[in-house]
Amino acid sequence: MNVVVLNGPNLNLLGTREPDIYGTVTLAAIEKRVTALAAELGAAVRFEQHNGEGELIDAVHRLVGVADAAIVNAGAYTHTSLALRDAFTATGVPFVEVHLTNIYAREPERRHSMLAPAARAVLCGFGAHGYELALRGLVASFGSARG
Amino acid sequence: MNVVVLNGPNLNLLGTREPDIYGTVTLAAIEKRVTALAAELGAAVRFEQHNGEGELIDAVHRLVGVADAAIVNAGAYTHTSLALRDAFTATGVPFVEVHLTNIYAREPERRHSMLAPAARAVLCGFGAHGYELALRGLVASFGSARG
Amino acid sequence: MNVVVLNGPNLNLLGTREPDIYGTVTLAAIEKRVTALAAELGAAVRFEQHNGEGELIDAVHRLVGVADAAIVNAGAYTHTSLALRDAFTATGVPFVEVHLTNIYAREPERRHSMLAPAARAVLCGFGAHGYELALRGLVASFGSARG
Amino acid sequence: MNVVVLNGPNLNLLGTREPDIYGTVTLAAIEKRVTALAAELGAAVRFEQHNGEGELIDAVHRLVGVADAAIVNAGAYTHTSLALRDAFTATGVPFVEVHLTNIYAREPERRHSMLAPAARAVLCGFGAHGYELALRGLVASFGSARG
Amino acid sequence: MNVVVLNGPNLNLLGTREPDIYGTVTLAAIEKRVTALAAELGAAVRFEQHNGEGELIDAVHRLVGVADAAIVNAGAYTHTSLALRDAFTATGVPFVEVHLTNIYAREPERRHSMLAPAARAVLCGFGAHGYELALRGLVASFGSARG
Amino acid sequence: MNVVVLNGPNLNLLGTREPDIYGTVTLAAIEKRVTALAAELGAAVRFEQHNGEGELIDAVHRLVGVADAAIVNAGAYTHTSLALRDAFTATGVPFVEVHLTNIYAREPERRHSMLAPAARAVLCGFGAHGYELALRGLVASFGSARG
Amino acid sequence: MNVVVLNGPNLNLLGTREPDIYGTVTLAAIEKRVTALAAELGAAVRFEQHNGEGELIDAVHRLVGVADAAIVNAGAYTHTSLALRDAFTATGVPFVEVHLTNIYAREPERRHSMLAPAARAVLCGFGAHGYELALRGLVASFGSARG
Amino acid sequence: MNVVVLNGPNLNLLGTREPDIYGTVTLAAIEKRVTALAAELGAAVRFEQHNGEGELIDAVHRLVGVADAAIVNAGAYTHTSLALRDAFTATGVPFVEVHLTNIYAREPERRHSMLAPAARAVLCGFGAHGYELALRGLVASFGSARG
Amino acid sequence: MNVVVLNGPNLNLLGTREPDIYGTVTLAAIEKRVTALAAELGAAVRFEQHNGEGELIDAVHRLVGVADAAIVNAGAYTHTSLALRDAFTATGVPFVEVHLTNIYAREPERRHSMLAPAARAVLCGFGAHGYELALRGLVASFGSARG
Amino acid sequence: MNVVVLNGPNLNLLGTREPDIYGTVTLAAIEKRVTALAAELGAAVRFEQHNGEGELIDAVHRLVGVADAAIVNAGAYTHTSLALRDAFTATGVPFVEVHLTNIYAREPERRHSMLAPAARAVLCGFGAHGYELALRGLVASFGSARG
Amino acid sequence: MNVVVLNGPNLNLLGTREPDIYGTVTLAAIEKRVTALAAELGAAVRFEQHNGEGELIDAVHRLVGVADAAIVNAGAYTHTSLALRDAFTATGVPFVEVHLTNIYAREPERRHSMLAPAARAVLCGFGAHGYELALRGLVASFGSARG
Amino acid sequence: MNVVVLNGPNLNLLGTREPDIYGTVTLAAIEKRVTALAAELGAAVRFEQHNGEGELIDAVHRLVGVADAAIVNAGAYTHTSLALRDAFTATGVPFVEVHLTNIYAREPERRHSMLAPAARAVLCGFGAHGYELALRGLVASFGSARG
Repeated sequence: MNVVVLNGPNLNLLGTREPDIYGTVTLAAIEKRVTALAAELGAAVRFEQHNGEGELIDAVHRLVGVADAAIVNAGAYTHTSLALRDAFTATGVPFVEVHLTNIYAREPERRHSMLAPAARAVLCGFGAHGYELALRGLVASFGSARG
Repeated sequence: MNVVVLNGPNLNLLGTREPDIYGTVTLAAIEKRVTALAAELGAAVRFEQHNGEGELIDAVHRLVGVADAAIVNAGAYTHTSLALRDAFTATGVPFVEVHLTNIYAREPERRHSMLAPAARAVLCGFGAHGYELALRGLVASFGSARG
Repeated sequence: MNVVVLNGPNLNLLGTREPDIYGTVTLAAIEKRVTALAAELGAAVRFEQHNGEGELIDAVHRLVGVADAAIVNAGAYTHTSLALRDAFTATGVPFVEVHLTNIYAREPERRHSMLAPAARAVLCGFGAHGYELALRGLVASFGSARG
Repeated sequence: MNVVVLNGPNLNLLGTREPDIYGTVTLAAIEKRVTALAAELGAAVRFEQHNGEGELIDAVHRLVGVADAAIVNAGAYTHTSLALRDAFTATGVPFVEVHLTNIYAREPERRHSMLAPAARAVLCGFGAHGYELALRGLVASFGSARG
Repeated sequence: MNVVVLNGPNLNLLGTREPDIYGTVTLAAIEKRVTALAAELGAAVRFEQHNGEGELIDAVHRLVGVADAAIVNAGAYTHTSLALRDAFTATGVPFVEVHLTNIYAREPERRHSMLAPAARAVLCGFGAHGYELALRGLVASFGSARG
Repeated sequence: MNVVVLNGPNLNLLGTREPDIYGTVTLAAIEKRVTALAAELGAAVRFEQHNGEGELIDAVHRLVGVADAAIVNAGAYTHTSLALRDAFTATGVPFVEVHLTNIYAREPERRHSMLAPAARAVLCGFGAHGYELALRGLVASFGSARG
Repeated sequence: MNVVVLNGPNLNLLGTREPDIYGTVTLAAIEKRVTALAAELGAAVRFEQHNGEGELIDAVHRLVGVADAAIVNAGAYTHTSLALRDAFTATGVPFVEVHLTNIYAREPERRHSMLAPAARAVLCGFGAHGYELALRGLVASFGSARG
Repeated sequence: MNVVVLNGPNLNLLGTREPDIYGTVTLAAIEKRVTALAAELGAAVRFEQHNGEGELIDAVHRLVGVADAAIVNAGAYTHTSLALRDAFTATGVPFVEVHLTNIYAREPERRHSMLAPAARAVLCGFGAHGYELALRGLVASFGSARG
Repeated sequence: MNVVVLNGPNLNLLGTREPDIYGTVTLAAIEKRVTALAAELGAAVRFEQHNGEGELIDAVHRLVGVADAAIVNAGAYTHTSLALRDAFTATGVPFVEVHLTNIYAREPERRHSMLAPAARAVLCGFGAHGYELALRGLVASFGSARG
Repeated sequence: MNVVVLNGPNLNLLGTREPDIYGTVTLAAIEKRVTALAAELGAAVRFEQHNGEGELIDAVHRLVGVADAAIVNAGAYTHTSLALRDAFTATGVPFVEVHLTNIYAREPERRHSMLAPAARAVLCGFGAHGYELALRGLVASFGSARG
Repeated sequence: MNVVVLNGPNLNLLGTREPDIYGTVTLAAIEKRVTALAAELGAAVRFEQHNGEGELIDAVHRLVGVADAAIVNAGAYTHTSLALRDAFTATGVPFVEVHLTNIYAREPERRHSMLAPAARAVLCGFGAHGYELALRGLVASFGSARG
Repeated sequence: MNVVVLNGPNLNLLGTREPDIYGTVTLAAIEKRVTALAAELGAAVRFEQHNGEGELIDAVHRLVGVADAAIVNAGAYTHTSLALRDAFTATGVPFVEVHLTNIYAREPERRHSMLAPAARAVLCGFGAHGYELALRGLVASFGSARG
């Protein structure tokens, strides 16, 4: 199973960005851990990060024929981007939505996800571990048949 | 009359994107048909497609002094982009808003257009034919004087 | 293809009604132009105009077995009449919704259409040309098969 | 007990109108069954159907001095007509509101009734049987004294 | 000055309709009093009453070239009819909106008027005297110059 | 046909509870009348009443394999309990929603039913007779085949 | 009949305040005309104007035992002052609400009146004539018995 | 690490309840799998299921001094029970909220969670696997230190 | 005067539950103090606490013929339980609503009380003293006549 | 403990103002009773009443260095005055909000308090006794330390 | 250029009022600094402060013929006073709205300004420096020509 | 003090873009003036302009370690971009939000700023001078210590 992990705006700053909220683990460290887990689970992962909405849409388009599924932390675009959701429904690539923090315990503008209606599953509040759980979930729930 | 047809995010996937909703005609096929009609009507058309909001704004800026009008299918940015609307009011280029599907019969988040208040006309639900109708409408209604 | 063009309240005043908004073309002139175009396209059109909601519903009922499709400018009933929408869904007659002005650039009470969810297509802002475009669209998109 | 059954817009199409939603029984067949039940219960019924809001208001006015109560299926006017409700409060004729379908399980615009605040009772979802139940209810609950 | 007084749905029942709310004066009695006042003020009045929205729109259309102004008590259509407002803006006939009761002290659905944005003046709560005040107001404020 | 009549919170007080609103008939008296009618219609009924939401859910679960349908007056839980609705959709037991009063003519918090979207039919305002009408309706409309 | 005319904030500027909206007649001129009319109708009027909400409340309190009714143009406090409404309900003095302009055709924040639910009648859009009409209305409708 | 898995209303029907939505795995089967995983992770789990809101609150109270954390699938109470959230904040027991389905892709009434603002993490859409992921997440993210 | 003090969900944890918000006094200590005060005032009090909504409704039903009034701290059910309010209106038992904290200075979901419209009085923010004040208030204001 | 009791608009009319709602006790009588109670509790009280918002703000400012706490019945300003709330937060004087009636059982515009978020406690519905309860509450809860 | 600086309710407490929010600079100190800057810029300033809405309106009226512009910090009236806005539009005096704090980062009730639609410019969050910036802005942007 | 001035979509058109709204000064001219002022104030400024949201986020990221503060005119992204706000909170760079026009006097969609809750200060309506005022404000208020 090939999985691409797409990260959205400001996630390149992970580790230094409001560490009391987002923790001190960097995206590179997360990638390392998820890659290790993927190997263990017989899957392959690749990480991408983009600050632009259009670049993320391009990245979703590139998944066709390449990835079986995606793990997506779209950052603030989660709450505003219908175009990114359309990119997933247009390509048909199944994905799990991940957030480091429990977005439902934060400011009102972070409590609604534009992506979630198209997601297979949603997971938030586990910090950096969330990516690993998402991968496990993808393999366990959707690994056998693309849906 | 010079007309530029601007297409927004995910429209490059036309033909393969949810064909039961959007049909199987590709953007290239539409361009061909619209170009033929333009020739017949004594107009010239050029097609552009961009997945990024900023790229679409740049494209609108480039219309100044080049195009008499635009036909715009902004995809999901239709519903979220005030900046794209501002690009049109800032440049003063008249445009017709086009959608393949009848957006007013779809999900609530697609029933409001940020662009429409600045558009000359709006047209949706005619599938791929919509672009041709928009061109005819532009020529018939707004062709004589830029307004 | 037999098409009936249904016009709603106050459209009998077209040409004298707020000409800076609605233009100076009369409904009779529009009928003439649309009839000519229909002939050219191998279709037949008939115009009706009614100020009463009940009369419009009766008119929709009479379409059954007579018309293949309708072009509807329901005037202000567009925004308030669920009964008129029901008349279309009850009879199953496909229709295109037309408005002279871009209703999405006008007062808030004109920005929502009760009819649109049942329409095949919607078109507004092309002035009197809108009826012709609607006819072309009907023939091009829905002419071959009803439904 | 004299009861008039008032039917609103599009109900003349019953039997052919979206039969998967509204069933295949015609209004004439319902009238027959309700008339038979009325005879059995010692009551008299008369059926009227109008597509116009004004015609329905006229019909309510005619009830004064003639009918002890009404059974009303106002179709889509149920959701939009304050004037029809006023006709009932103005004449003081008690009525039961009936719908063939369970309107509270349908589209949002059908879940609010303008008439219900003035009705004695409301009943929906029993299909064509609803009229008979309404008549039984009228006779049982309100038959002895006009209230 | 020629003035037409248009009365809407259920106002034919005035005098018997919920007399504790609307009083016991009939529309005929009001017409008599207003006619007498008009004579005194050098004006002429004519009364019409219609239960149908379409009939009221027709009546507004007939005012063109005949009446200098209208006094309108549209009953419940006040709160729901955009088409009736459009009839006034389409014909350009100035009018005063009148209600027997203080609609702003009644149920929420009577506190918003669809007509008022197009009215010259609004007046409510004076009971049957309101028509006379409206006539005086028309003559005093708008009598010299139309519009 | 086996029917269970489920009554919710405070309905044990029927007869003494706000008798000007709910009448003076007790639940026991209603049960007697409905039992008699059931016998006449060839059906069997059993009454339950619970003040607890969990107890009502348990009661719905017990219907499986025992009852063909239910008549439900969930009292105030009607307006607040998604869990009770889920109990019905989870078990698939068809039910008719009953209220003694016309809830659509009462306080705003009683005008929305959480149960109604899952109900086959809804009936209110007939007082104690409502249960009998519901039984008749169940037998007439849904008796032949479980839906 | 003793009537006090209470004018609220900024009405002292009448005649110079946005004359295209409010006209060029001063409050003193209005007072003169209303005083003359009062004499003609056998009534007496006194004018007060206050910019402060507390001062207006004091003025309402002083009406007790002195005035039979009031004519009130509370300016912007119309839309914000519950305390002023309370002053009227606390003293029981009947009043007519007057506005120079048709407030229902202006900005949204002027379309709701906090006072109107306690007023006997409301009148707006007649310009300076409104005060005279209000006085006539008070005398005609409420003059005989304090209500 | 001692973990209690609390299941709310209707979850006892898992496996037979709308299997196309919730799957065919029973709660007992889930318990078995989660127990096995717990053993593997060096944790202990206990399952409880209650249909009553009060019973669930009691169950939360019993966690004090017994469990280090909870996994909670509160069923429909998720969306309505502030009291259940209070039970968690009152006891201070950390918990992960789990749903079988992606609640953000379902009916609007299921898209808001009353519990989530007090949860450490939220996870939905992984079907029966969600409980295992929640346990892994609890151990990984919150296992070392409570709080 | 016999008074029952009903306490709702989670109040059994008082003293240990979020002591910085709710204080460190236990419900038993409050009961002691209120009992002492009751003796002083010639009244009798009994305390009950229930976590279940149904149990609280049962408790209200048991008040009939036993208690002259109730003091109610319904915890989170305050904000969600129409059924509990109905229990009070059904039994006619007068009650005072009490909260330890000033609920109007807390989260939005705690600022609306479902019970308050049926309460005689409401009191919040006095901490544990609130129960004593409520008892004094009951005796002083409602002690002489039930009603 | 020095306490000032601030009364807002229209409370000078207490005793004659809508006595069926507010009772027949005058503010002077209340002052007498509260003064007596204060003496008993070892506190001192002073009463002020103002109809103007600015005067009430001035009065709050004068509390600094003079009063330990305030009891505030701000009348209708309760619902509209952010400036009065600011006066309390600006001076830091703790206060209890009091209303004679249960404002949560009255018109919607009285159910929201602008002051409450800054109040220590809120109390309403005890009629004239409310002031005494507020004083007792102040002394019991906040008397020892200014908070 | 003559400029009057109007300060609203509670600003007389500046320096002692919630210093962590509003700072420790007094209004007198601000006046000193602004006066010095005005001298430097060839302008003259005068400061006024009022706690009453009516007094502020009076102050605006006094500006006519005296001041070329105003700098206004209306405190909490910013968010509630339409009458104060009307005072500015009535007199035509241009003004800049100033706030010490960034009101858009505070409580929701402070995020909407009633005055701003009539202001030339708005400026907030610069603390005491804001007045100086407003003066500079007035001189730079609006100093040459009024209007 | 190093300050970067970030300009968002369509601001490159300044000077030609709707000059009656935005003025005729170009961004280059503004840059010149602000640079001159910076020199005078002992600060350094650099201007950037981007039409893409992602490009603006990149630009904010580049500020770290380079700029002490930013002046931001994000154009239409002001109203829609949570991602841009996140970029500022993620990097911790203090900024002042600037708009040429008074956005609070424009269309509703421009009256809410997504950025303002993270800004130090907000300033609008001073036209091209606003950038200079913002620089002065930054230096005066935030220049000494980064906050």
